[in-house]
Amino acid sequence: MSIISKTYRLVLVRHGESVWNLENRFTGWTDVPLTPKGVEEAKQGGKILKENNFKFDLVHTSLLKRAIQTMNFILNEIDQEYIPINKTWRLNERHYGGLQGLNKAETAAKHGEEKVLIWRRSYDIPPPELQVDDERFPGNDPRYAFLPKDVLPKTESLKECIARVLPYWYDHIGPDIINDKQVLVVAHGNSLRSLVKHLDQISDTEIVKLNIPTGVPLVYELNENLKPMRHYYLADENELKKKIEAVSNQGKKAK
Amino acid sequence: MSIISKTYRLVLVRHGESVWNLENRFTGWTDVPLTPKGVEEAKQGGKILKENNFKFDLVHTSLLKRAIQTMNFILNEIDQEYIPINKTWRLNERHYGGLQGLNKAETAAKHGEEKVLIWRRSYDIPPPELQVDDERFPGNDPRYAFLPKDVLPKTESLKECIARVLPYWYDHIGPDIINDKQVLVVAHGNSLRSLVKHLDQISDTEIVKLNIPTGVPLVYELNENLKPMRHYYLADENELKKKIEAVSNQGKKAK
Repeated sequence: MSIISKTYRLVLVRHGESVWNLENRFTGWTDVPLTPKGVEEAKQGGKILKENNFKFDLVHTSLLKRAIQTMNFILNEIDQEYIPINKTWRLNERHYGGLQGLNKAETAAKHGEEKVLIWRRSYDIPPPELQVDDERFPGNDPRYAFLPKDVLPKTESLKECIARVLPYWYDHIGPDIINDKQVLVVAHGNSLRSLVKHLDQISDTEIVKLNIPTGVPLVYELNENLKPMRHYYLADENELKKKIEAVSNQGKKAK
Repeated sequence: MSIISKTYRLVLVRHGESVWNLENRFTGWTDVPLTPKGVEEAKQGGKILKENNFKFDLVHTSLLKRAIQTMNFILNEIDQEYIPINKTWRLNERHYGGLQGLNKAETAAKHGEEKVLIWRRSYDIPPPELQVDDERFPGNDPRYAFLPKDVLPKTESLKECIARVLPYWYDHIGPDIINDKQVLVVAHGNSLRSLVKHLDQISDTEIVKLNIPTGVPLVYELNENLKPMRHYYLADENELKKKIEAVSNQGKKAK
């Protein structure tokens, strides 16, 4: 006799290519739109969810338009524009501090590819910190005016990004899942890494090597304690491999 | 010596042309997308808000994609995709009961233009009521499963539509305004009429003649008791006149 346990499902999607992805610049909290390719990736993510009959009760996303636009295209494809949308700064991309706006290849040429790789891929070494009068500091952006300034990042290591993301998992995403909601999260490379590290208990050294492809739904099946039983990408395998390689090549010097 | 009183501002926008507007069919709660012209109207509404430096703290909209898409285009134009979105069934279009899906000109030819005008424009005579097993009854649509079925309409007169919309004004839109939020409402011809009738204390006989043009921001300036001091459309005057005439011609027989 088998005992049927409660299981849940969670779907994560990383936004499609943005203008600054294309220009190979450190984006972080800069609010840049999707490229036409990014739009296509978003639509493709929505189409594959539709083909697999995924339906959602609600979405969590960031305050950045590349994630919000990706979400809108997905909801359009699955004909679910009507579901509630929750937008939170806690799902924003990692803040890249003084590197935001710089071209990755130029930064590599200037500081050395190794240093850039440390900033991009180390677990706990943050990029240079912004001054509070720098326009790139979120405390100077009206959209974050509802938050105390001392909670807003001047830069973030991945470790700091995770510390900022996890309260949202515990207070919102997790409880929604436990309340039997079908949850979609549309966010960014590093805010999604934060969730994935927590869910799969990935080590500090392994998480920096993990690349999440853009626009490809990542499905988690969770047990009654929200521990993953399995996860998989909704995509053609070759397509997926190309996408993962594309992401990990971004830090290389321009040729 | 003048005494400065507290004043508030509220912006209402009716969605752009939808596929069934174009086909001249009774739409109601049917979830049809915008036409390319409707998309342009939405973008135009956003552009004029941007030109006039309007910024919002939050949006209220319906559960129907023609309003949600209009809202998305507006938020994109004013570069405010990040603001909170509240979607509610209470801002849905008036439910047209048994007329939903029928071509307005055909219905006019069959029942007479006068009868159609009564259904479209009388204050308290609802169109024919749907049976509960009719797929057009919202109780059979999963998106409304969170509501008790007896609150969902089988048809609505304008009077019934108003009775359904106003609780949302009292519980959500009004309190947001009093709490000094800059509020945008993107909704439908009759849910907006409901708000306008209440705000301007328009009589039952006058409200049925009032046509709100599509995609044109309607700005209300309210006093500290949320009573209107003035209202105006953000649009070129000739453009506005043409739009109002277009709406009032929809009930005429096809030529």
